[in-house]
Amino acid sequence: MAFDYGSFVKGKGNTSMNNFTFYSPTYFVFGKDTEMEAGHYVKRFGGSKVLLHYGGGSVVRSGLLDRVKESLKKENIKFAELGGVQPNPRSGLVYKGIDLCRKEGVDFILAVGGGSSIDSAKAIAAGVKYDGDFWDFYEGKPITEALPIGTVLTIAAAGSEGSGDSVITKEEGMLKRGTGGEALRPVFSILNPALTQTLPAYQTAAGATDIMAHVFERYFTNTKEVEITDRLCEAVLLTMVKEVPRVIIDPNNYEARANIMWAGMVAHNNLVGVGRSQDWASHGIEHELSALYDVAHGAGLAVIFPAWMAYVYKYNINRFAQIAVRVWGCQMNFENPEVTALEGIERLKQFLTSIGMPINFRELGAKEEDIPAMVEKLGLGENGTIGSFVPLTSKDVEQIYRLAL
Amino acid sequence: MAFDYGSFVKGKGNTSMNNFTFYSPTYFVFGKDTEMEAGHYVKRFGGSKVLLHYGGGSVVRSGLLDRVKESLKKENIKFAELGGVQPNPRSGLVYKGIDLCRKEGVDFILAVGGGSSIDSAKAIAAGVKYDGDFWDFYEGKPITEALPIGTVLTIAAAGSEGSGDSVITKEEGMLKRGTGGEALRPVFSILNPALTQTLPAYQTAAGATDIMAHVFERYFTNTKEVEITDRLCEAVLLTMVKEVPRVIIDPNNYEARANIMWAGMVAHNNLVGVGRSQDWASHGIEHELSALYDVAHGAGLAVIFPAWMAYVYKYNINRFAQIAVRVWGCQMNFENPEVTALEGIERLKQFLTSIGMPINFRELGAKEEDIPAMVEKLGLGENGTIGSFVPLTSKDVEQIYRLAL
Repeated sequence: MAFDYGSFVKGKGNTSMNNFTFYSPTYFVFGKDTEMEAGHYVKRFGGSKVLLHYGGGSVVRSGLLDRVKESLKKENIKFAELGGVQPNPRSGLVYKGIDLCRKEGVDFILAVGGGSSIDSAKAIAAGVKYDGDFWDFYEGKPITEALPIGTVLTIAAAGSEGSGDSVITKEEGMLKRGTGGEALRPVFSILNPALTQTLPAYQTAAGATDIMAHVFERYFTNTKEVEITDRLCEAVLLTMVKEVPRVIIDPNNYEARANIMWAGMVAHNNLVGVGRSQDWASHGIEHELSALYDVAHGAGLAVIFPAWMAYVYKYNINRFAQIAVRVWGCQMNFENPEVTALEGIERLKQFLTSIGMPINFRELGAKEEDIPAMVEKLGLGENGTIGSFVPLTSKDVEQIYRLAL
Repeated sequence: MAFDYGSFVKGKGNTSMNNFTFYSPTYFVFGKDTEMEAGHYVKRFGGSKVLLHYGGGSVVRSGLLDRVKESLKKENIKFAELGGVQPNPRSGLVYKGIDLCRKEGVDFILAVGGGSSIDSAKAIAAGVKYDGDFWDFYEGKPITEALPIGTVLTIAAAGSEGSGDSVITKEEGMLKRGTGGEALRPVFSILNPALTQTLPAYQTAAGATDIMAHVFERYFTNTKEVEITDRLCEAVLLTMVKEVPRVIIDPNNYEARANIMWAGMVAHNNLVGVGRSQDWASHGIEHELSALYDVAHGAGLAVIFPAWMAYVYKYNINRFAQIAVRVWGCQMNFENPEVTALEGIERLKQFLTSIGMPINFRELGAKEEDIPAMVEKLGLGENGTIGSFVPLTSKDVEQIYRLAL
């Protein structure tokens, strides 16, 4: 079955600005040493017994987890702990977390980590409040309530710190599914850019690619005349184009880290997507790639997006020329805008290469012979489509994988 | 005394990105016919007895008030009414509103109108929950609680629909003062761009100028390397540069109205200002102008901003060159960036003139001989200053007024 990004896509077709709602109630706390305020904010938002939820050893080794615990203790807030969240977080740990929360009487989930820890925390938060199997939510059941969630973010990438979305993988069949809902928006998120300074360059670049991809999915729309949303998209992209190379050269550049981290939130709380149709085909197409080869989601997006663009740009050459001019600084070719559109795609590829991302199957370590299986697994069948800018069939998706070889 | 914009200004000096918090919990409902959902949202956010607060006759004549009432009745929500809010809303009506709310057992304030109605509603909301004189809040007392506030916005300008700020004028001495606080952020705001289609061109242009001014106050900062905030500022300005002329030519252009209305919210919920010092001198300097001549705040800003820019640009020529290039499309003069900086200021003046705004005292109807009195009333005294980009003394302010002649 196709990955469902339906919650993002509020409108379709060639219309002008759609009616929309925008709700981003998260309290953001940004800057140096802000993790020391975690306890303060848990208390402010009504938590008295916390589940500390995190991934591997890095938050332990770096001392971050201890600092967060200290801030909880300072406010006399009790906590239970559940580590071990994996990239592409699994349902098994979610069930474990739900049980633990019930046993311990937890009333607040605090995720310490990246998108995986936060997504897993969201699943637990919804599951605790539900009598049935939490997986129901990932098969389409609407989420009406959840425990309050807070986050201490350690990587700029997924945007989960400011969104109501969560993606979980079910071990049986390795089904990767997403859900979303207002109840899943974190009540607070703590963003300390200094925490990201220890990330390896590859992970930094993959996160940056994910951020840019969140904008691309919203930029390529069939809705006309939403200049404000276009410009906000471009603002995030222009920031990334400036700041990411700086941080690849100098991982300790706090200012560049800070700009990227905040851009990552802005890219995905949906401010840059309101009022129009959104695409999300590339995310679906990529998921099969990262599921099969266990590569970083951002690296997979670096491979898929240029291929997707090359496949669909003819449907709206001027939109591709616009991003080429406004983001990549290309000169508009007024006699032949297609030249400009293609130049923009080429610049994106050069940019991705320059920050160390793969841009094709070979560089990613993916294999041509796996394409039919990935197309099959995407599950569009005979008549299904994915995406909104250009609805793509299985045949189209196969072509896009091949363009990425 | 100087107008206090202290709540915006979170940092000073030549530093890189400051720690900040960002909290914009308002539920925004945007688009055609959305005023019919007012009752639904009042109920959702816990209101059972509403004060409907509005200004003059236009919301009555247009039928808007009746539509809002109908939506309240549909949800069985009772309401009291208080109209008569003036531009530059007065304390007298606030006291009346507080009394009425207490008498009627109101638990939710719904403002229907522009910035004045919303600011007045905020003052009432805070006052109802306070035993003392509400004016205390406008003299510096922090606001800790208020009744929940909703808005149905009818003009794109003040940004009060998404901010925690309120400006009220006290009749005695015509003191204009501002306050702010998280409790004053509307819980929901309904923005139907079609409601703004009936606004006269002058009011539309004055509102647009106010929106752009909210960005300028945040753009001219001493904090370095906050690229994301710069770019978001520029996104709003670029949108205005495109959309405002379209709406002056064709007042019924829904798409242009929609882009401007949403830009107005983005310009002032502080997303485009986080992480750095903000200036706000021009707003203070302008307030004396609109107080004395009872002109539209936006028109006053159109007069003051170019003069302020001409006076301070030398303190950071490159920042003025940046806005000239990125927003006004000027070519960078690398041999002499000052030329570019000045060209940007000139373009702003041309733009304001093109949309029908005054750009000097003469066009506004202000008089040179009143300058000393305005400087006096601003209340900086011997040693006081206003603004952060360049802290200005009384003498500086006088020069700026004279540059605006």
